Amino acid sequence: MDSMLAFLVAARRCEIHDLEQLARSCELVHAVSELVHRLQAERGASNLYLASAGASFGADRAARVESTAAAEAAVRAWLAQPEVCQTASAQAMPGGARLFTRVALALHALGGLPGLRETIAARRCGPAEATLQFSRVIAALLALVFEAADVAAEPAVSRLLVALFNLMQGKELAGQERASGAAAFAAGGTGSAGARGEQTLLHLIEAQEACFERFEAFCPPVVRASWEQARVRMPMAELERLRRKLIAAGQGAALEPALAEPWFACCSQRLEIMRETEAALADSLRAACAQRIAALRADPDDLQSLLQALAGLPESPAPLGALVGEAGGAVSNRPAGDEAAGSEPLGPRLTRSIVDVLQAQSLRLQAMSDELAAVRATLDERKLVERAKGVLMRHQGLAEDEAYRLLRQTAMNQGRRLVDVAQAVLAMAELLPRRA
Amino acid sequence: MDSMLAFLVAARRCEIHDLEQLARSCELVHAVSELVHRLQAERGASNLYLASAGASFGADRAARVESTAAAEAAVRAWLAQPEVCQTASAQAMPGGARLFTRVALALHALGGLPGLRETIAARRCGPAEATLQFSRVIAALLALVFEAADVAAEPAVSRLLVALFNLMQGKELAGQERASGAAAFAAGGTGSAGARGEQTLLHLIEAQEACFERFEAFCPPVVRASWEQARVRMPMAELERLRRKLIAAGQGAALEPALAEPWFACCSQRLEIMRETEAALADSLRAACAQRIAALRADPDDLQSLLQALAGLPESPAPLGALVGEAGGAVSNRPAGDEAAGSEPLGPRLTRSIVDVLQAQSLRLQAMSDELAAVRATLDERKLVERAKGVLMRHQGLAEDEAYRLLRQTAMNQGRRLVDVAQAVLAMAELLPRRA
Repeated sequence: MDSMLAFLVAARRCEIHDLEQLARSCELVHAVSELVHRLQAERGASNLYLASAGASFGADRAARVESTAAAEAAVRAWLAQPEVCQTASAQAMPGGARLFTRVALALHALGGLPGLRETIAARRCGPAEATLQFSRVIAALLALVFEAADVAAEPAVSRLLVALFNLMQGKELAGQERASGAAAFAAGGTGSAGARGEQTLLHLIEAQEACFERFEAFCPPVVRASWEQARVRMPMAELERLRRKLIAAGQGAALEPALAEPWFACCSQRLEIMRETEAALADSLRAACAQRIAALRADPDDLQSLLQALAGLPESPAPLGALVGEAGGAVSNRPAGDEAAGSEPLGPRLTRSIVDVLQAQSLRLQAMSDELAAVRATLDERKLVERAKGVLMRHQGLAEDEAYRLLRQTAMNQGRRLVDVAQAVLAMAELLPRRA
Repeated sequence: MDSMLAFLVAARRCEIHDLEQLARSCELVHAVSELVHRLQAERGASNLYLASAGASFGADRAARVESTAAAEAAVRAWLAQPEVCQTASAQAMPGGARLFTRVALALHALGGLPGLRETIAARRCGPAEATLQFSRVIAALLALVFEAADVAAEPAVSRLLVALFNLMQGKELAGQERASGAAAFAAGGTGSAGARGEQTLLHLIEAQEACFERFEAFCPPVVRASWEQARVRMPMAELERLRRKLIAAGQGAALEPALAEPWFACCSQRLEIMRETEAALADSLRAACAQRIAALRADPDDLQSLLQALAGLPESPAPLGALVGEAGGAVSNRPAGDEAAGSEPLGPRLTRSIVDVLQAQSLRLQAMSDELAAVRATLDERKLVERAKGVLMRHQGLAEDEAYRLLRQTAMNQGRRLVDVAQAVLAMAELLPRRA
């Protein structure tokens, strides 16, 4: 009976440990979402600066650089805390291997920013190249958020992370649309890119919508309501009018360079409105972690009164943490020999109570695990599609958006789900030689 | 660059920590598989003892009890080690909350054995009741093995655990078939159970085959080969002949009580042959853990030579463990301000090396995560079918095998997969009131 109780308490300790570690990664995600937003603004200002050949937006760009640097410093300071990756407990972070690898890759990407800024300041690159470089840094940060969602083991928090990741990804595609459109207007047409530029734009629009759909599916009602209100304020009529001109340009029509600025302003306004929801979601992520930890400390299966009864304590509201918070505490795990076989040294009433708590805890954990599997299925689908895209890019030499379009077109032609086509591509890929 | 390296090393430490914890749960699974096998033998001997009204198998039963008790003591001694659930590191066991809860439930089930044995010795219950009680204990132990498979995060080990779980489950169904058939022969017919007994038998046979198919799909080639050889030695002609008689009895034919003993002997021979493969698989599980840990210590992405280069050490074969084995070791994580923006204090060659290691590690972890998702899909399907069965049992008042048959029949009638029907049942269940 003693050892049964020891494992019951150890299970609860594991649950608390995992939630505390999850709360940590959510703090990081919060800081990263701010950094991504500022990087997007810096990318925009850098593009305008480069497009105007340095004539305007210099001061705006400088302000953006400073703002990004502050957000980056916040992320780095958070990461530099010893308890993040240097303590023994941090080495036991669930999914830590994957998460920390993503952090290192993101730090590597961030390390390239000072060089990029020098290049931009000296105008030694064009807007397209600058966009590409900024987008790579942002992609590394988004991959970190995705990983955090994928390793999270608490369904409520996991849902929020999936919602946040999809909103961030959709917003990033909107940011890329802004950059690509601004370049096209500034150049007076899609130029040599022609239909290719039109396809890129269509892909960015379509992929955004897919992200927002997934975001809406996973987002809590209160954030969903504020998102609906935010959408109404977005300048969609103006955006669609300008999008139409860009698409017509892909078919040969000329573009008025004067429209570059209204396009940029209208896209930016939309991004800022998205950021409101994104920030609300990042806040609710923190709140959800705090709430889950509080719920666990509030003792869902009534472990505390059981432990009090065992200790012969009065039923005073001692915090559960005091009883189960530290390893190797009050509950001993005597070797099996100590237990008279079949006897119930605690009496049948307490034995019954332990079994009740145990069964409640087991059902609760099982329900959580089932719910989590459902949330993760979405992430698994995304992983499959991303990997299938990678295969097509490698084997067929396609660009990312071309690869995505090929998958989607095949799915439509064959009346199959995108994820099934992706799976077929991956199965086929194992039979094909890899391009060097 | 410093902090990037710190996270790279922390990721490796997490990987090692997780593998070591996984090796622990595999040790437990190894001990549990032995205990389950002995419980099955004790259940068989207890049945024969009860069926002969205590006239025979008394000595055999006593020997089985002793043998089971030794295996149980081994499991309990293993669990009583302080590092299993009482250290801070154990509290950080991946999936620990679920695994430890299952351990506690299994300990509770084992706690009922002494009472059950007293009841059997005094012949205060019949074979059916004894079978049911033993089967419950075995089910709690199998649930522990299933959980270990479900929380394992290393695909090679996870595949072996899935294979072992299915083999154990199939063998347990074969053990239940032995008990149910022995009771029917001893009683001279299925009696009042009639067609119900026949259905139970058909269900046990069919469910066994499904388990062995999944086992074969996940089992490594070497174990698969020894399984094929083992199957040849199984007395299948005799078993099928006796099964035929049992099924005919369900349709009203009488059974010769004298066949109880050949039936039991033939089923037992089959179980013992299965146990050979099961033991081989449990051994290969231990070997696989050791091999994965060795592979990780052998430094797949060449982190060690990188760390040596950074430390200015000669390229002597210092063990990676010495460099990354303990938290807060050689690699410091200086705050961001220490790094001159954009400079590469380590020189471009070393920076490049860090990025190479990082990317290799990232690809490796991603491939592992993808492979794992594929293995887990099988487990998720099983969970869905189990939950759907539970819903049908609650809502329709069906027995377990009836619920399974209803699911299977519906799938066949509608030409859908079993798992899709299970999903439909679960979706429907949310709309229905729950029986008290």
